[in-house]
Amino acid sequence: MTHLLIQNAQLLRVDAVTQTAIVQPGQDIVIRSNRIEAVQATGQVDASHFATVIEAAGMLVMPGLINCHAHVPMVLWRGLAEDASIDRWFNDMMWALEHNLQPEDVYWGMLLGLIEQIECGVTAVADHYFHLAYAAQAIEKIGARALLGYAMFGSEGQAKIDETARFVQDYQGAAQGRIRTLLAPHSPYTCDADFLRASAKAAQKLGVGIHIHVSETKQQTIDSLRKHGKTPIQILQETGILDVPTILAHVCGATPDDIRILARYPVGIAHAAKTYLKLAMGKTPLLEFIAANIPVGLASDGVVSNSTLNLFETMRLMALTQKHDAGMGEVMPIGQALAIATQGSARVYGQPDELGAIEPGYLADVILIDLNGAHHQPLYHAPFSLVYNLQAPDVRTVIIDGQIIMRDRHLLTIDKQEVYAQIRTRMERLSYLDPAKRIQTY
Amino acid sequence: MTHLLIQNAQLLRVDAVTQTAIVQPGQDIVIRSNRIEAVQATGQVDASHFATVIEAAGMLVMPGLINCHAHVPMVLWRGLAEDASIDRWFNDMMWALEHNLQPEDVYWGMLLGLIEQIECGVTAVADHYFHLAYAAQAIEKIGARALLGYAMFGSEGQAKIDETARFVQDYQGAAQGRIRTLLAPHSPYTCDADFLRASAKAAQKLGVGIHIHVSETKQQTIDSLRKHGKTPIQILQETGILDVPTILAHVCGATPDDIRILARYPVGIAHAAKTYLKLAMGKTPLLEFIAANIPVGLASDGVVSNSTLNLFETMRLMALTQKHDAGMGEVMPIGQALAIATQGSARVYGQPDELGAIEPGYLADVILIDLNGAHHQPLYHAPFSLVYNLQAPDVRTVIIDGQIIMRDRHLLTIDKQEVYAQIRTRMERLSYLDPAKRIQTY
Repeated sequence: MTHLLIQNAQLLRVDAVTQTAIVQPGQDIVIRSNRIEAVQATGQVDASHFATVIEAAGMLVMPGLINCHAHVPMVLWRGLAEDASIDRWFNDMMWALEHNLQPEDVYWGMLLGLIEQIECGVTAVADHYFHLAYAAQAIEKIGARALLGYAMFGSEGQAKIDETARFVQDYQGAAQGRIRTLLAPHSPYTCDADFLRASAKAAQKLGVGIHIHVSETKQQTIDSLRKHGKTPIQILQETGILDVPTILAHVCGATPDDIRILARYPVGIAHAAKTYLKLAMGKTPLLEFIAANIPVGLASDGVVSNSTLNLFETMRLMALTQKHDAGMGEVMPIGQALAIATQGSARVYGQPDELGAIEPGYLADVILIDLNGAHHQPLYHAPFSLVYNLQAPDVRTVIIDGQIIMRDRHLLTIDKQEVYAQIRTRMERLSYLDPAKRIQTY
Repeated sequence: MTHLLIQNAQLLRVDAVTQTAIVQPGQDIVIRSNRIEAVQATGQVDASHFATVIEAAGMLVMPGLINCHAHVPMVLWRGLAEDASIDRWFNDMMWALEHNLQPEDVYWGMLLGLIEQIECGVTAVADHYFHLAYAAQAIEKIGARALLGYAMFGSEGQAKIDETARFVQDYQGAAQGRIRTLLAPHSPYTCDADFLRASAKAAQKLGVGIHIHVSETKQQTIDSLRKHGKTPIQILQETGILDVPTILAHVCGATPDDIRILARYPVGIAHAAKTYLKLAMGKTPLLEFIAANIPVGLASDGVVSNSTLNLFETMRLMALTQKHDAGMGEVMPIGQALAIATQGSARVYGQPDELGAIEPGYLADVILIDLNGAHHQPLYHAPFSLVYNLQAPDVRTVIIDGQIIMRDRHLLTIDKQEVYAQIRTRMERLSYLDPAKRIQTY
């Protein structure tokens, strides 16, 4: 059984109520098995009693980041859908490229993406994709944490709901509990009301949540009102989706009425700031969600829109975009950005009492960060540097579920070169673009 | 005399006319003394004839980035002016903190900032600051390239113009030609028309350019129209500033008429995207500048507004912000962003025929980038990865004026720990905040 001591760290403390962040020096973190047993001033325990000791002097320790909405295996097409409108991005690029996907690609794509996530301090991911049994193998192998939702389109009918329901049952609690599952109808624009209703019913029956794209742009809201007389959020409400714990991806196009609806349901919003900028998806009512006490968490989306899986960059872009759009430099202060990146993301991910903080009883998903680089000097205020200056390689060591996955930048559970080699053999086939073949139409 | 071979590199080629970027594999770059002598396919020269050979297989080679507007020594106050409106940022924070500045601080602050710049591939900087003889020493020491403008406020009168004119004469061509100089009246809002006119006259007489802040926000334009009946750009035109080669910092608040004026003068615009987001300075008419063929280059501004001196991040944020503000994902494609980062910046910096490209006869300011990290895989398209995925530590080797300044992340001309130690002794004094004492009022 793991018995791990992180010694003499500077610990990030984020107060979710006051939305402030401080750093507490001289802290020990005691990890037993997969949980944090104690957090205390250095000097109270004898390091020789521990199987492993990580000396953390000069390092900042914080909870691993949680990616609340991604399509990690889409890393396979990195850089192949650039400088496009959202329509072209879907129809002429991504949904054509995805026609090339084979199940085993998902295993290698998931591994490559998880390597990137771990290297930038992301320890858990709510992934929404296809062929997830292959993704689960990758998660098991590398030692990551994930919440898996098997993507389904309305055109695939009840049979697909039944199939993904079996996936939910088969993989709930897999990888020693690191894998949780839920249902994942793609969106109200690719799933009709009957399909959404059947999905919600299946989720209720299984006792799991739902993960869905919704109101990604204002235009989607306008189109839905024109076509159905209802906003996409109203459709989710009427079909029962909102009755189960639901991760809503994006929601950039929510109306004030939509926000009032959402505030009454057990939902969380996954916010992917870089994607919104890159695909020009418009202003997002993020501050309104927060004002309505709707949980908000960070998300990378897929790298085909976001370019990377780096959530530190996402946090920074979220804060910068909110200041820019509000026209006020005071908006989204450092403590609020860090509260979203930690406890906010844990709420959206559905484990607010086990993730997103370094506290006794919490799961041991912990990252160590080196703030000694020139780009952090002089270091008057570490929380500022986390939000505005951090470079992914500052993340030195990553622990997930009590296991050291990366130590001083060395990955311990995976052979990176083997993954690269496997990906290389797939590039030509995966990048073949036949716009006449698409998995869906936007 | 340096005789240096970079062997078997992938060379970035940016076509400024078509605004496209490609990567050419298998290229040798021959450097003699401080200039590029030849660029050719690998295998045509005998490596044993060279004093130094850098094996660049698997590396991308591109021109060093040029920072067109900075206050590098302000790194001394990193993180001390956060989450503020632009008014508070000036009056209650920066102009109060700068009251603590002593001349020798500039030497150490400049060194620390230059270390950060070199570590992210920035090889030249147009700096606008105080006590520049100390900055020049730091540039000489570390081996960087700079265009120095000694900041002056109108309240300091003709005596200051005369003093900074002496600086221009004393330091023009210093550090074996790596230092150039110009005059640097701060801005139209801190310098009256007579002072600007006298500055322009002095620059004409000295045969040098000018570096000035102007129209930083729409509000500054509105205030100027109310107070003077003219926009800040019109004031620069009337006072003769635009008649000499001039670097205009920011210009976010330019009117369409201002842009028509600027297109007729030898000016360039320094664009600091992260600062504009962070201080909520509003939308910038960047695409209109480009349409009017006004040169645009990248800028970090000071780290007190920008947090870092990382121009790769600035380039990315420029492209993302332009897409977001235009509401079109097609805007500011990859090739255009790279053209601004290379030749565009060289034009603004005033050395378009010597910097910003890897061509025979150009100055040897060259950086080597490792694109083998997981965050670049699979690598279908390297120019995309430069704009959207690069992390500063991917910059492995930096050559300035033919001299290797950083090799495989090791700085060769400076002891980083000594700089850190010197900065630490200054932190308490520099961070003392007495809002009653300011160097100016905004």
